[in-house]
Amino acid sequence: MRVVVSYDVRTDTSEGRRRLRRIAKLCESNGVRVQYSVFECQVDSAEWVKMKDKIVKIINEDEDSVRVYFLGSNWQRKISHIGLKKHFDVVDDTLIL
Amino acid sequence: MRVVVSYDVRTDTSEGRRRLRRIAKLCESNGVRVQYSVFECQVDSAEWVKMKDKIVKIINEDEDSVRVYFLGSNWQRKISHIGLKKHFDVVDDTLIL
Repeated sequence: MRVVVSYDVRTDTSEGRRRLRRIAKLCESNGVRVQYSVFECQVDSAEWVKMKDKIVKIINEDEDSVRVYFLGSNWQRKISHIGLKKHFDVVDDTLIL
Repeated sequence: MRVVVSYDVRTDTSEGRRRLRRIAKLCESNGVRVQYSVFECQVDSAEWVKMKDKIVKIINEDEDSVRVYFLGSNWQRKISHIGLKKHFDVVDDTLIL
């Protein structure tokens, strides 16, 4: 199934930036980065449970926000894009809010 | 239907920042801001056509990226959240990349 992961992670502290890099790497290992803080991951239910568990362990639930959208298996017609399609490098382009 | 709008708009120019404010206001008038650059809008098909037309007119398609996810009408079970749920002010909290 296609799962969209969008996150806002506090980045005004070094700890927040570290969490941001770890989240980006986790998402990047399961999917494609489509915007600075939005990933589209292709996982089955069991893989998603593991991925979610890792996300919960990485973030600080009092400071960081992760929004997840489940697009299911017929996801192709559920996604639309307007404008620039960017290429991201997970290390250099980590979003600093 | 529930439509998720996520955008990356160039903000290192005053023109880019102006586009960002206009996109945020447009999305805010049709939905709720759930993260810095992610909105969840409740629109029917005709309303979405108008909204998309406005987005296309606002952004610079060579610089800005807008990603849209159509969650349909049974969207409640397609959204999950981990961590902090933020309150946003569309003017003050416009994301500066």
